[in-house]
Amino acid sequence: MNLILINPDDVKDDRIMLAGRRGSHIRKVLRAKINDTVKIGVINGNMGTGLITEMAGDEITLRLSLDMSPPPRPLIDLILALPRPIMLKRILVQAVTMGVNHIYLINANRVEKSFFSASLVKDGEWQNYLLQGLEQAVDTRLPGLTVHNHFRPFVEDVLPGCLAGIKHRFVAHPVGNPQHIYSHETGRVALAIGPEGGWVDFEIEKLGQVGFKTMSLGPRIMRVDTAVPALMAQFNTQNSHN
Amino acid sequence: MNLILINPDDVKDDRIMLAGRRGSHIRKVLRAKINDTVKIGVINGNMGTGLITEMAGDEITLRLSLDMSPPPRPLIDLILALPRPIMLKRILVQAVTMGVNHIYLINANRVEKSFFSASLVKDGEWQNYLLQGLEQAVDTRLPGLTVHNHFRPFVEDVLPGCLAGIKHRFVAHPVGNPQHIYSHETGRVALAIGPEGGWVDFEIEKLGQVGFKTMSLGPRIMRVDTAVPALMAQFNTQNSHN
Repeated sequence: MNLILINPDDVKDDRIMLAGRRGSHIRKVLRAKINDTVKIGVINGNMGTGLITEMAGDEITLRLSLDMSPPPRPLIDLILALPRPIMLKRILVQAVTMGVNHIYLINANRVEKSFFSASLVKDGEWQNYLLQGLEQAVDTRLPGLTVHNHFRPFVEDVLPGCLAGIKHRFVAHPVGNPQHIYSHETGRVALAIGPEGGWVDFEIEKLGQVGFKTMSLGPRIMRVDTAVPALMAQFNTQNSHN
Repeated sequence: MNLILINPDDVKDDRIMLAGRRGSHIRKVLRAKINDTVKIGVINGNMGTGLITEMAGDEITLRLSLDMSPPPRPLIDLILALPRPIMLKRILVQAVTMGVNHIYLINANRVEKSFFSASLVKDGEWQNYLLQGLEQAVDTRLPGLTVHNHFRPFVEDVLPGCLAGIKHRFVAHPVGNPQHIYSHETGRVALAIGPEGGWVDFEIEKLGQVGFKTMSLGPRIMRVDTAVPALMAQFNTQNSHN
């Protein structure tokens, strides 16, 4: 936790009282005392510092000074064939850490249907993992996340509207062209990453119809939780480089 | 497990009997039957197929045909400040999946000293995770792994000899120059990645003295298990691209 995220509704007269996980983090990990300051960010708002004015057990009161803008909105939209829940947790934290604007969790031929009924997906428990990623990266902008249970309607009806204005669209596929990822152009990027076992031909074809070019990191077969940071890093550095 | 790795000593007259984890994988995950073939690789040797000739419970006998060379030796040497054991397991699998020639696990100012007495490190239990990475990537070349308990003697006395002939040497550091990673040159690369909390100035300075240039993926703070695949991917694609 490199940043403590707070909800704007919990701030009263520039003060906030933290308890639970965040209170315990301030006390036990940061080992902060009265008059120390800690890094604070308002979800979808500014960042800054909190000066500790009172401590009563794990209940800690801070006076806030939030005058820094968060980092710019990330340039990547990630379209991810829904992975198994235990892997999804890790991937969400990693993707948000690296910087993602929106995550589309979608169905695909090789996605196990039972993954959609995991409470992580069904009950919106993914929110915690997005927040963990922001706390790691020192960012406050919560990415969007939407779940799409049907591949074809998603690609045909949802994607064209959502990706309007995004020129660079790539789908990771072992036979993809490694050269595509060296187009040193700036701007937003849509990146589609398939399930364990990969996309089927129909899926590559449908994504191709809405402008996705195949790309590859080479012949070695990666698990999705390796592929996500490896693929995202191509674009992150590229964009920050320009 | 995209490849079943076997020990050369276990092969008798082009045949091998597999049981335990591998036998169970063939039976339960691959659901293979007599006369089916599965992908087999000899550790540090050739790859090919195994034809199932007998099955008795989880004891499976295969006739081997091993006529394919493994992929070329990876170009990256990874110098990694020893992470906590639970994270190290995941990082080893990921690094080997992406392709690594040698892993140096080293000490640094912000490494917790207790990590060196974890059985994973002390008793060589890391071997299993290297094999998992090879099974994932479909490779047989086991990377080297060495553990170095003292930073300064490692950098001054060990590193110059080990890295002889490696021109491209990078150390990941937030203030590094993102341009370095776009030097589209081929050849072997040494990549040094620090502990949670980063390298201290003295360490950057010592690594600089043996030719390491700082590089960065931008201002977002990544956990080591995100940074390793993200940083390695810069060089993997670069090398396969040339």
